Amino acid sequence: MSAEPVEGSEKLLKLSVDFGEENPRQVLSGIAKYISIENLAGTTCAFVTNLEPREMMGLKSEAMIMAASGEDFFSLLKMDCPPGSSVK
Amino acid sequence: MSAEPVEGSEKLLKLSVDFGEENPRQVLSGIAKYISIENLAGTTCAFVTNLEPREMMGLKSEAMIMAASGEDFFSLLKMDCPPGSSVK
Repeated sequence: MSAEPVEGSEKLLKLSVDFGEENPRQVLSGIAKYISIENLAGTTCAFVTNLEPREMMGLKSEAMIMAASGEDFFSLLKMDCPPGSSVK
Repeated sequence: MSAEPVEGSEKLLKLSVDFGEENPRQVLSGIAKYISIENLAGTTCAFVTNLEPREMMGLKSEAMIMAASGEDFFSLLKMDCPPGSSVK
């Protein structure tokens, strides 16, 4: 739904993600160097959602975005489906 | 790399998939009703690759394509990265 930088971090983005639940989840992700906010907000991507929440820079992260990355590439897993759809 | 129907099955497609290994793998997937061969061959998608091979219709399947599906949608997990890249 939205993405914004995290003050004091060059790596982290703070995402607000609609998983089809009552409220969106806050997700912290170290992808700020690889993707622009403009290319992220409004897209549908794959996440791991069944992990314990983690704290980063004092902020809670309630899921983990999935990505493939290497020296010269970075790719999210783009989907075209309703928010909260399960991957099998 | 390629996709083709499986004789005698309305559900299965037989895929040849480049995972950056010495040889491509053969993957059988029950997605024939949801996606056309034209929309599949040449794309980069996410697979689960660390499962035991399975046999379907007498053919070996050496990985599993990842997808989200429901009554009125079907989505693969599209990526933009070299073949064989790991998702984390």
